[in-house]
Amino acid sequence: MTLDPTLFGEIDPPQRLLMGPGPVNAHPRVLRAMSADLLGQFDPEMTGFMNQVMALYRPVFGTANQWTMLIDGTARAAIEASLVSLVEPGDTVLVVNFGRFGLLLTEILTRLGAKIEAVSAPWGEVVPLEAIAEAIEKSGPKVVATVHGDTSTTMAQPLEGLGDLCKAAGAYLYVDACATLGGMEIAADRWGADVVTGGLQKCLGGPSGSAPITISDRAAERIFARRHVEQGIRRADISDGAGPRIPSNYFDLAMIMDYWSEKRLNHHTEATSMLYAARECARVALGEGLEARFARHRKAGAAMTAGGRAMGLTVYGDDAHRMTNVTGVCIPAGLDGEAIRTAMRAHFEIEIGTAFGPLQGKIWRLGAMGYNAMKHKVLLTLAALEACLTAEGHAVPLGAAVPAAIAAWEAA
Amino acid sequence: MTLDPTLFGEIDPPQRLLMGPGPVNAHPRVLRAMSADLLGQFDPEMTGFMNQVMALYRPVFGTANQWTMLIDGTARAAIEASLVSLVEPGDTVLVVNFGRFGLLLTEILTRLGAKIEAVSAPWGEVVPLEAIAEAIEKSGPKVVATVHGDTSTTMAQPLEGLGDLCKAAGAYLYVDACATLGGMEIAADRWGADVVTGGLQKCLGGPSGSAPITISDRAAERIFARRHVEQGIRRADISDGAGPRIPSNYFDLAMIMDYWSEKRLNHHTEATSMLYAARECARVALGEGLEARFARHRKAGAAMTAGGRAMGLTVYGDDAHRMTNVTGVCIPAGLDGEAIRTAMRAHFEIEIGTAFGPLQGKIWRLGAMGYNAMKHKVLLTLAALEACLTAEGHAVPLGAAVPAAIAAWEAA
Repeated sequence: MTLDPTLFGEIDPPQRLLMGPGPVNAHPRVLRAMSADLLGQFDPEMTGFMNQVMALYRPVFGTANQWTMLIDGTARAAIEASLVSLVEPGDTVLVVNFGRFGLLLTEILTRLGAKIEAVSAPWGEVVPLEAIAEAIEKSGPKVVATVHGDTSTTMAQPLEGLGDLCKAAGAYLYVDACATLGGMEIAADRWGADVVTGGLQKCLGGPSGSAPITISDRAAERIFARRHVEQGIRRADISDGAGPRIPSNYFDLAMIMDYWSEKRLNHHTEATSMLYAARECARVALGEGLEARFARHRKAGAAMTAGGRAMGLTVYGDDAHRMTNVTGVCIPAGLDGEAIRTAMRAHFEIEIGTAFGPLQGKIWRLGAMGYNAMKHKVLLTLAALEACLTAEGHAVPLGAAVPAAIAAWEAA
Repeated sequence: MTLDPTLFGEIDPPQRLLMGPGPVNAHPRVLRAMSADLLGQFDPEMTGFMNQVMALYRPVFGTANQWTMLIDGTARAAIEASLVSLVEPGDTVLVVNFGRFGLLLTEILTRLGAKIEAVSAPWGEVVPLEAIAEAIEKSGPKVVATVHGDTSTTMAQPLEGLGDLCKAAGAYLYVDACATLGGMEIAADRWGADVVTGGLQKCLGGPSGSAPITISDRAAERIFARRHVEQGIRRADISDGAGPRIPSNYFDLAMIMDYWSEKRLNHHTEATSMLYAARECARVALGEGLEARFARHRKAGAAMTAGGRAMGLTVYGDDAHRMTNVTGVCIPAGLDGEAIRTAMRAHFEIEIGTAFGPLQGKIWRLGAMGYNAMKHKVLLTLAALEACLTAEGHAVPLGAAVPAAIAAWEAA
C-alpha cells in the first residue's frame, strides 16, 4: 500500500506568466506569508489575525460593515454562502445576467429553490439601470443578484444607484465582485450593496481558496433570524432565530459570523495559511493605495486594448463598460486560437485565456491583474502574441503593438 | 478609504507547539510547498499535479478508487459535499453517533432534508457493530454515516465489517476520517466504505482548507445519476443524469469529479496553493511509510496516556477504542482547567485543547499528531503540564510522567 515517494518530485512548477482571466501569479509577499507556522484556532494571536483581516478588508470593499471576513473556499463558495443564507426557498430573486457568471448565479439559485427572474443583456454588453429598475418593479424580488465584472465577456456592470432602487423596493442587493475586487473600485456602502463577495486569485494577486465577503447590518439581521446553532455546541448566550433554517451548514453565514465574532462559536477550522494569504493580499493592496492600484489596472487594460488594436485585432465588447483587468480580443477568422495559445505557452511561458460558451473559439482573454497588471508584463505579452501570430502565418503590422501600448499606458 | 498598511505588521505568529486536537503545527516541507508560484488551472502542469494528488491519496485512503481527490474547503466542506451528493431529500440515513461530530453529521443531514435515524453510544464509548447491524435492519437506511475518530471524545469507531453490512442492506457507507487520516489506518476498500473524507490539519500535518476525499465507483454512479451541468458551460460530450439535482453547486460531487476527470469541465478554480500543500502532506506521509507513521502515532498516544496516568490523572474514555493521536485527560476536581491551559501557553508556548458540550471543563485534550506525534514533543508537553499543575497547587508525583512516557513509547 506504500507508494514510492520519489515517484513524484518536489513541487516545482514552471515559471509561467499568467496573463489570462485568472488565476494570475501571486505576489511573492503573499506566497511567503503562507509559509508562517499555524496557530490554534482560538489562540489569542489567531483571533487577533482574524480581527485584522476584518479591518483590512473594509477599505478594500469600500465599506464600514462590521461583518467583513473570509469564506473558506474559492470565490464560488462565497457566492453560494451569500445566496443560501440570504434567499429563502420560494423567494423571488432578480438576476442581472450579462455573461457566464450571471448564469452561475441562476444555476446556484435554482438549486436553492428560488423563483428566478432575469434581466439580461447580450454578451459583450451590460444591463442598463432603467431595465433593472423596470424588472424590479415587475417582479418584486426579495433579492437582486448581480455580477460586477464578468470575465466571460470582460464587461463591468455599472452599479451606482442600484442599491437605492433595491432598498426602495424592499429588496437586498448581492454583488459578485470576484473578478474586480482590488482592481476596480468596489463601493459596497455607496452602491448600497448588502452582500459583496470576492476572491484572491484575480486583482488581489493571491491564490484561490479563500473568499472575502462583506455583509451589511441589514442583511446580517435577516440572516441571524435564520440562526440555528449546532446541537453539539449550543450555548446559553446564543439563541436561535425564528426564520427557516439555512439549508447548508458549511455556508451558514449566521454561524460563520458567530465564529468571527467575539463569541467565537466553533464552526469550521479556519484555513490558517489561506487567512495569512488573504491578510497579505490586503496589506499589499492598501500599501500601494487603492487609487493607485485602480489606476495601474486602468493603464494595463488601456495598453492591452491599444496594443491589440495596433496589431489589427478587434477588441471584443462594449468600450464604455470594459473591465480594466481583462480584455477580450477576437481570434481572426481562419486562425486556430488554441494553436496560438499553445505557442504562447511553449515558446514564451505566457498563458493567455480561452473563452466559454458562445465565445469559445471566438476570443482570447488577455488578463493583466494584481501582480501582473504591470507595464512590462503587458508589453511582453503583446510582443509574444505578435510573434506567435506572425509564425502562424497571420500578417500583423510588425512592431506596432508595443509602442501603441506604451502610449496608451502613459495616457491612461 | 486607504488604511495605513503599517497598522498591522508582517505576519509573525508566535512559535507555539500545538498539542491540542488540531490544527497542529504543519510540517515545514508542507509550508514551503505552498510558496511555489501558481499555475493556470488548465495548464498541463497543473492538471498533472491534480493527477498526482489523485495517485498519492489512494494509498493514504487505502483504496484503488479512481475518484480520489480534494474538496476546496475545510474538512467540514468535504463532509457536506459527500452527504449532499449522496443523500437525496427524504432518504433515510442512519447516523452512528458517539460524539460531537456524530451530532454534526445529524445537523448537516437535517438541513438536507434527510430522514435521520441514529444509533448512539454514550460519550467515551463506541457503538458495537451488532447495534449498528440491528439499527440497519430496523431502519432500512439508504446511507449509513459515521465518524471514524471523534476528537470530541477521543474515541475511534471500529469499522471492520461495516461495509459488508451496508452492502447487504443496499446502503452506502460514508466515513468522516478527518481526525485519523494519515495517523491511523484508513482502509476504505477493506472496510467497504463508499465515501471517505479527511482534512490536512490533523495527522497529515498540513493547514486546514483542503479536504481529501475518496469515492467508490458504486457511489460515483449514484452521484453521476444526479449530474446537472451548468448552463454556461454545457458540452455535447457530457449529459445530465435522471436523478434529482444536487441542491448545492459548490458541493456537487458530479461536477467536481468532471473537473478532476480528463474532461476538465470547469467548476471552481482549484485552490492551487492548498493543492500543493495537500500533495506535500501525502509525499511526507508516504515517504515515511504509512505503517511507520501509524506506529509513531500509536507510540505518541501510548506515551501521553502513560504520562498522564503517572501524574495521577484519570484518562478519559474506553481504553479499547482510543484514538492514538488525541488523549482526553480528566481535569482534577477543584482545578480550573482554563487556568492550566493559559499557564501552558503563557509559560511554555504549548497549546493543549479544551473540550465541547458535556465535556466542557471536564477534560483537556492532549494531541500528538502529524508532525507533532514525536517523542520529544510528548515529553515536553507532559513536563510542562506537571510544572503547571504543581504551580496551581495540585500535587502530582514529581518526575514520574516523563519516564513513564518514555517507557510507554518504547513498549508500544
